[in-house]
Amino acid sequence: MQRTREDLERHFRENSERYMRQWMELLRFPSVGGDPAHDADCEACAEWLRRHLSGIGFEARLLPTDSKPVVYGERTGRAGAPIVLLYGHYDVQPADPLDAWRHPPFEPAWEGDRLYARGAQDNKGQLFAALKAFEALMAAEALEATVKIVLEGEEESGSGGISRALPAWKDLLAADVLMVADTGMASNGAPTIVMGLRGVVFMNIALRGPHRDLHSGVHGGLAPNPAQAAAELAAGLHTADGGIAVEGFLDGIEEPAASAVETATQTPFDPVLYRERTGCEPAGGERGLPPQLRVGFRPTLEVNGIHAGYGGAGSKTIIPASAEIKLSGRLVPGQDPERCLEALARHLEARVPDGVRLEILNRGAAGPGFRLDPSSPLVAQARNVLDGLSEQSPVLHWEGASIPVVAALRTTSGAEPLLVGFGSEADNIHAPNESFSREQFRLGFLYTALMVRQWTSEAGTGT
Amino acid sequence: MQRTREDLERHFRENSERYMRQWMELLRFPSVGGDPAHDADCEACAEWLRRHLSGIGFEARLLPTDSKPVVYGERTGRAGAPIVLLYGHYDVQPADPLDAWRHPPFEPAWEGDRLYARGAQDNKGQLFAALKAFEALMAAEALEATVKIVLEGEEESGSGGISRALPAWKDLLAADVLMVADTGMASNGAPTIVMGLRGVVFMNIALRGPHRDLHSGVHGGLAPNPAQAAAELAAGLHTADGGIAVEGFLDGIEEPAASAVETATQTPFDPVLYRERTGCEPAGGERGLPPQLRVGFRPTLEVNGIHAGYGGAGSKTIIPASAEIKLSGRLVPGQDPERCLEALARHLEARVPDGVRLEILNRGAAGPGFRLDPSSPLVAQARNVLDGLSEQSPVLHWEGASIPVVAALRTTSGAEPLLVGFGSEADNIHAPNESFSREQFRLGFLYTALMVRQWTSEAGTGT
Repeated sequence: MQRTREDLERHFRENSERYMRQWMELLRFPSVGGDPAHDADCEACAEWLRRHLSGIGFEARLLPTDSKPVVYGERTGRAGAPIVLLYGHYDVQPADPLDAWRHPPFEPAWEGDRLYARGAQDNKGQLFAALKAFEALMAAEALEATVKIVLEGEEESGSGGISRALPAWKDLLAADVLMVADTGMASNGAPTIVMGLRGVVFMNIALRGPHRDLHSGVHGGLAPNPAQAAAELAAGLHTADGGIAVEGFLDGIEEPAASAVETATQTPFDPVLYRERTGCEPAGGERGLPPQLRVGFRPTLEVNGIHAGYGGAGSKTIIPASAEIKLSGRLVPGQDPERCLEALARHLEARVPDGVRLEILNRGAAGPGFRLDPSSPLVAQARNVLDGLSEQSPVLHWEGASIPVVAALRTTSGAEPLLVGFGSEADNIHAPNESFSREQFRLGFLYTALMVRQWTSEAGTGT
Repeated sequence: MQRTREDLERHFRENSERYMRQWMELLRFPSVGGDPAHDADCEACAEWLRRHLSGIGFEARLLPTDSKPVVYGERTGRAGAPIVLLYGHYDVQPADPLDAWRHPPFEPAWEGDRLYARGAQDNKGQLFAALKAFEALMAAEALEATVKIVLEGEEESGSGGISRALPAWKDLLAADVLMVADTGMASNGAPTIVMGLRGVVFMNIALRGPHRDLHSGVHGGLAPNPAQAAAELAAGLHTADGGIAVEGFLDGIEEPAASAVETATQTPFDPVLYRERTGCEPAGGERGLPPQLRVGFRPTLEVNGIHAGYGGAGSKTIIPASAEIKLSGRLVPGQDPERCLEALARHLEARVPDGVRLEILNRGAAGPGFRLDPSSPLVAQARNVLDGLSEQSPVLHWEGASIPVVAALRTTSGAEPLLVGFGSEADNIHAPNESFSREQFRLGFLYTALMVRQWTSEAGTGT
């Protein structure tokens, strides 16, 4: 038995109020995975999801890791049916700066069609739309595939727990297709199939000089200045043309296929729209490369935060005792995350000014970057489904963001990744006033249900 | 009638408890002149001082400026007697970081001989010791000189109000010697006559990129990063050898007299002691110059604060919307503060990376640097008094710090400046846990009384 597009649309209309209510419940958990102060909130959120999966027809449990638990749900399909593995994450980015939010970040609030809350899109909104699609298919007894759900709690902070646990879950997670709903649409609103993701590394460092703030007159010309040192180290990460200056960081980068580069650069990039949406020119990254390649095919190294000395009102004439820098980089296929971190540490250590001490506070590497094959039949099926959902033709996109664990999940499960999501720039993910619209939620719901139906049916025909 | 050293010592012993109590009262005012939130506290502090001056025998009033009021006291001496002008400031540095204080900064607390509070030394402790010296001389009818007291409320934030008012106060402040008790002793504890001060300029800037924090994956390679831009601008302020790289900033610097350079470099500088007291090597400033010259004869440009992006626990993968830098520079004789600020602004504006906007939030210039004449008779008299107070010979010192208004007060009053103070490195001025000892207070008291007595007597003999 199969559901038609019309069935699904009707089902969504009839159940939409309940879906929205449940989604808001999920958003009330301040599950900031990167902040130990929110550990209990993350566990409560995971437990809520486990019960929710149970309630809609999955065998659900929490899989412990050496860190945050993974929510696991399984629903066995007909014998021999193909297996869909859905990946999502229940952790969210920190909410600060709090005073920039129009509504408290963990008290979801509607403005018209949009629901505002931290995690509204990334990833609670997108994952919940997909869960509701499976719920709808099961409710109509229209789900033939076996479905496995994996929801982790550390995507925003490196996916450490699940990554270390994955090797032991090879049988549990074996699957044919790995659906990931944690990506966005093109800036013109076209549905988008992500053909690559960047990897991510991060490193937080401190620079220490005097054991307390010093008077900048008495000590100016004597004491080394850790704020100045931090600025010099951060400035030294890039060449004058915007490239990465860290020796060894770029080692091993795989040249992308010419066809991929061609497809990527043919996707329009509108600098006027970019300026409207972000408030700035697309002037970052390496000079001389088109924007699509700078984001999709080149690594970055960003200063996410730099803090030293006085930041209050007026002036304070001090030489600060210390400085901190938070760095992260995005990696492309061929770059080894651990080797990149080593290269970065060596680069920094070699450049610490006299009298200042470098301390690496923490560092982490998650998945490497990877690229998929544009000629795969799965991509063709996804294009077909997306064609029916939008007036705009779907596009292939080499993404700048990271979902650290996708490369590892692909290895563990043996499944072919398929990354389609309905995020938009207006959603403000990782920033104040994050939101996701009911219409985006509806698209995620329809796509997931239709894609699973079509793919199961074609795979079924094949056996 | 004159008081002997023994009289003064006895007077101090007998009145010491009362002096300490009054000093603690003065320290309870959180008179942070640079922070508009403390305007009322500054006015209350000024009014307390006015009443106190009245109570000990001065004609006292508040002189309004276009900013903080100046506390003015005058006591007419015998006809034709020379005039002493005492300068001090009742404003203090901000107290943050608050959690680094062992006692609340505006609740003075004793630890042994030391009184801990913001302003304990700089400048409330030092100015109050001098006021008590005049009180003691007057109480014994041993004060022949005319004394004028000027206490301003903006020394830590550029001395704007008094500086703009001074031209109108030429008659009021006419004097023969300008005593300033806002300096310290040599690091080995030798009493110190300051032969020069540096000037000071400051500039606070913001760098603005996207109108909100952006996801560093989605936008990395597209959006310009204001934190990176801030680091590059701050790093570009100096050359590789620690010199100032800002074109025009060094224009006009006067070569110091060879004898001054010789005297300064003969004053011992102990790097081991420096490391013990500050926790860092004296590795700042221009390479290849001895430390005494780097502090006393060369300008600086320091990053007092730099803040951008995420500073909380863990990581946050953003491109920050903006960055702020607080800069200040110390100037030596010949540098014009306004021209230095112009040069700095031009330097920064010329180097703002593409896609980032520079905003100069505020900028200010106070007095220029100046140097005094080591062969003056006043210096000889001060050496003589200090010789009697310490087992160590007094030293001449070219100071790195600034008392912005001293150069202007010198011009207005026509008086010869004499800068002797009893601060020590252990006082932690401009930092948490500022303190000043009862013994330092006593030295300031004795020096002021003895110096005024000796100088009045010699000046009197001369008429």
